[in-house]
Order: sequence, then structure tokens, then C-alpha cells
Amino acid sequence: MAEMNRQFLLNARPVGEVKLSDLRYHETAVIEPGDGEFLVEMQYLAVEPAMRGWMENRGGYMAPLEIGDVMRSFGLGEVVQSRHPQFAVGDRVSGTFGMQTHALANGADSPVSLVDPDIESATYLGVLGVTGLTAYCGMTAIGKPEAGETVLVSGAAGATGSVVGQMAKLAGCRVIGIAGSQVKCDWLSRLGFDEVINYKTEDVDQRIKRLCPNGVDVYWDNVGGDLLDVALNHLAMGARVVICGGISRYNATGPVPGPQNYFNLVFKNALMQGFVVSHYRKMFPEAVQFLKEKLRAGQLQHHEDILDGFEQTPVALQRLFRGENLGKQLVRV
Amino acid sequence: MAEMNRQFLLNARPVGEVKLSDLRYHETAVIEPGDGEFLVEMQYLAVEPAMRGWMENRGGYMAPLEIGDVMRSFGLGEVVQSRHPQFAVGDRVSGTFGMQTHALANGADSPVSLVDPDIESATYLGVLGVTGLTAYCGMTAIGKPEAGETVLVSGAAGATGSVVGQMAKLAGCRVIGIAGSQVKCDWLSRLGFDEVINYKTEDVDQRIKRLCPNGVDVYWDNVGGDLLDVALNHLAMGARVVICGGISRYNATGPVPGPQNYFNLVFKNALMQGFVVSHYRKMFPEAVQFLKEKLRAGQLQHHEDILDGFEQTPVALQRLFRGENLGKQLVRV
Repeated sequence: MAEMNRQFLLNARPVGEVKLSDLRYHETAVIEPGDGEFLVEMQYLAVEPAMRGWMENRGGYMAPLEIGDVMRSFGLGEVVQSRHPQFAVGDRVSGTFGMQTHALANGADSPVSLVDPDIESATYLGVLGVTGLTAYCGMTAIGKPEAGETVLVSGAAGATGSVVGQMAKLAGCRVIGIAGSQVKCDWLSRLGFDEVINYKTEDVDQRIKRLCPNGVDVYWDNVGGDLLDVALNHLAMGARVVICGGISRYNATGPVPGPQNYFNLVFKNALMQGFVVSHYRKMFPEAVQFLKEKLRAGQLQHHEDILDGFEQTPVALQRLFRGENLGKQLVRV
Repeated sequence: MAEMNRQFLLNARPVGEVKLSDLRYHETAVIEPGDGEFLVEMQYLAVEPAMRGWMENRGGYMAPLEIGDVMRSFGLGEVVQSRHPQFAVGDRVSGTFGMQTHALANGADSPVSLVDPDIESATYLGVLGVTGLTAYCGMTAIGKPEAGETVLVSGAAGATGSVVGQMAKLAGCRVIGIAGSQVKCDWLSRLGFDEVINYKTEDVDQRIKRLCPNGVDVYWDNVGGDLLDVALNHLAMGARVVICGGISRYNATGPVPGPQNYFNLVFKNALMQGFVVSHYRKMFPEAVQFLKEKLRAGQLQHHEDILDGFEQTPVALQRLFRGENLGKQLVRV
């Protein structure tokens, strides 16, 4: 009997919180690679906050995803069959393989990377994956932290936020992280964050006011909503607000209010800039080099939050939006 | 009998629209200049949208203005007495002299400029004053218009907006202006704007959609509110949103909603940057040179909306917030 490819297909455009039923489990026969193709057996899948937008086709910055398509997802696995000159059986590869246990690829339609033998799979998909690239590119191109500056990070215990904070520390900044539990805050302290704020139990506005009498030079926003408004209230002159995500918005069913305090950008000669990491593709090689170097030097800590079993993938996605993950949320297939 | 100095003092922090009674008329004796001082007899006063914020001490980017202080204002006049080595009787000078007919200055506490003999007073205070500087600095440092790009300007028939649009035309851009009357739109067309939108009679969102199928590369925002949200809806990839003013906000009595569509900054890798022109002081010499050159070459048209009589100053201020002015609003003392 042929081996089965297990998949999750997009079943419905999410309304409000992502439901398990927005994805549909499906089995289909594994297809053998044609000429110039290779077959990847997945070992890990990554879930991202951006998936919420992909499921809705929001933003228009990626190819549309239709109902019935295999859900878009990054993954890492092993080449198990190959009719491609550059990818051999046994190679460990990473790419946008979709939410499935087996993927046919040709290395051209969407980029596939060979994974360095000395790097663990989970690390590669986490801090060396889109997460670390996002942190590096956003900080380097927009945040531009300088020694002595104060950097505030929301969603700080997430995969990107934790790298952002550590990069700021490496740049000589004072770093304040905002997260939603004591466990997360404790972890951030262990990572070297100078101060942590638990937004679920503390008055964030008052804490920032006390911690940053001279204002915030770089605010990295993963969440949007009230926290963005509070941060805009405490900008230093010439501040940079990096809009990376808006997880507080993704699950909203109606229109979400915008940042009332945006006009402080005027008084503080400040900028607010958004980005999608794919825009900075040219920066990826230097980003990967930087991240590998810091990893090897032990200067970049990371945590992967791993669920076991392919069938757990939709649950992993829900964990993200409920803020239950610590560091990168992965699924071990 | 000693000559009287007529003044308008800040009488109350405005709530909602600026009322005539928020300023109080006052007379006091003209004081003779001491050593290192000179006396300026005002010929023109300028009113600015920023005055609303100065009256409230908003933003904290300028020295606080207290109830009973002479209202802050730019002005242009003639030196009529001098005990200062660099300013002689008969010199035409411009500076932040306050809303009064006579001002003592020393050229040090706040900068005073000599006005070129070949430039008309109203022009100097308008296009060569804070208005033109604002347009130049904001476009040069933030907007960075490039040939072939599409530039959208709100408050386009105001003093700054009209210069912004013409600068964009000189840079080889396609320029669309938004204004609030047929008279203003007609004037913009005469200035060379490619398209004009009357926001009081047209569906701005639909017009922009039709006029800018590839999106807006630079949006210069003088007004905030709904127009900012609409513009954010039509950004091109890599767009720059220059937040110069928010006149729609200044008269609000309660909290004003923020831009709901700010998250498009992410999808479009776009930036939104605010500024106060004083932040770009170092750029003023090149700005003045550029503006004078273009004025002399006949490549920069301008209009001053002049009310006669010092007592008209509070009325001039109201005209601004009611959108009744065409070009720079001045008072001939």
C-alpha cells in the first residue's frame, strides 16, 4: 500500500479566534517526484501569527490561499526521494512546504535551504528561521538601536520578541520586555532583559512611565491595540516604532480602533514603520551569519515550544493566539 | 503720550473650536530697548494651525505658554529703535515676536532674520517662512519623492500643502491634491496639480482608488482623521506617510480615534513619520536657498490670504480652523 500524505487544508476563513474546524484533516497518496523534483518527509512544522492573515488572504503580499488548498506553513524535513541534481536523499532541508507530512518540491517555485549539519532542526526553524530573520531585519533596517538607548518590546516572550530583546542587549541598549505571564517574565529576565512588565497584572502605562522617564527610543510592536497606544505615549525624541505584528487584532471580528496617540509621532519627530520580512530578502545572508555566530558564541538563547504529532498542528496554532507558547511554537511531526 | 503696544494675550486654553475670547486684547506702554536690544514695529503677523497646540501646551516641544502671556506668533516688521550692533533702525526683520504691534528683541533668545530687500514681506512670512521650510524639510527628509511616483496631499490649498505639491511636481511626480472647496481645487489646478479632489463633495476613497490603481507613494497629511485612514488604505509598496499636521483633530473636545488602517504599513512595508520643523533647523539654509531660487525662476507660486488690522488676528486664526483661507493666512498690522 502506498504511503499516505497527511495534510491540513484551509477549510474556512477564520472569523474571530481561529477554530480547529478552520483547518480540515485530509489524506492523499504520496506522489513520487518527477524530473527535477524531490520529496521531503516533514520532521517539524512551524506555526506563525501571520497564518491568521494568510488564511484570510489579508494584505495581498503573498499568493492567495483558497479554501481547499494545503495550508501554507514553514517546515523542515529530510529528502527521501530525489530526481533533482542539487538535493540528495538524506539532505535535511527547510522551506515553505505546507501543513503536510510529505511535500514535493523543486527548489525553484519557492526557496528551499539546506540545513547545516551542526544545527538542531528546532533551532533552525525557530531562531534561524523566519523568526530570527524578522528580528534581525526589522532591528537592522528600522529599529537601529544604539548603545545607551531604551528599547521596549511587546510580545517579548514570543519567538521574534525574544530575539529582538537579545539583539538590543548585544547593541548595548537597556531592554524592557512586556509579556503575559510570570513564567514568561521570568524567562525574559534569564535572557538578560533589564526589566519585564506583565501586562496582565500590571499597569503598563505607569510602569513604562516610571522605568523610562526619558522615553522609549525603539518600540518593537508585536501586538498592536492598547499596548501600541501606551507605547506611543512614551516616545523619546526621534523614536522608532517597528510594527512587526498585531496579534491583538488578528482575532477581532469587527473593526479594531487605531492608535489614538499616533500624533505623538509629530511632537517626537518619530517614525512608525511596518514590514513583512520577505521585503528584506537581500539581508537574509547577513542575518543568518549574525544569528549563527551569536548562537555558537552562546550569546543568543532561545526556546522552542514543541507539540508532538502532526495532528496537533491546529492546536499549536491556537496556542499562539492564546499566548500560551514560550518562544517558537513548533510541531514535531 | 507714549506709544501703546497692542497685544493679544492667551486668555483661556481652548476647548473645541478656538473662540475669540480665548485671546484677550491688551494695551501696554512700548518699552524702550536696553543695551543689546532693539524694538520692532510689526507690519505682518502669521497665524499657524500649530497655534492650537501652543495654546494648550500640547506636545511639550516648545516653551510652555501660560495664561496671561503674549500669544506666540511669527511676525515681520521694521526695526524702529536699536541698541544692538547687528540690527539697525530701518532693517526689515522676521522672528517669533508674538501677537503684538511692538516687540523688544535681542536676536539671541529667539532667532531673528534680516529680510532680503528684494522679497515682499508677505512672501517672506509665507512661502519663505515656517510654511515653506516645513514643506521643504518634510519632503526632503521624509517624503523623498522620486520622479514618476504618485504624491497625495491633504490640506493641499493651505500654505504648506500648496508648496508640498509644487515641490513634488518639480521632482517629476504625479500630484493629487485634496481640498475643501471648488475655489481651492481650481487654484490647485492652476498651480499644476495633476488631479484635485474636493473632499466635501466627492467620495475620496473611490476617487483615490480610481486615480491611483498602483497606490500612493507619498502621502502628506495635514489633516488626520478620516482622510488619513483613507490614504492608508491606498498605499503603494514602500510608501512614506508624512504626518505634518492634524487640523481635523485640533478642535476636538474628546479623544479622537486613531488611524484604523495603520496596519497597512506592515503589508506595504511603509513608514509613517511625524515631525516638527524646528527639529530640522540645520536644513533651513538649503531650504531657503531652494525656495528663493524657485520663486525667482517663477517655478513656485503662492498666495497669501491677508486680513487688514491687528484686531483681526483672532479672526484670522478662526479662519484657519474653518478652512476659509487660501494659502498662507496673514494679518497686515
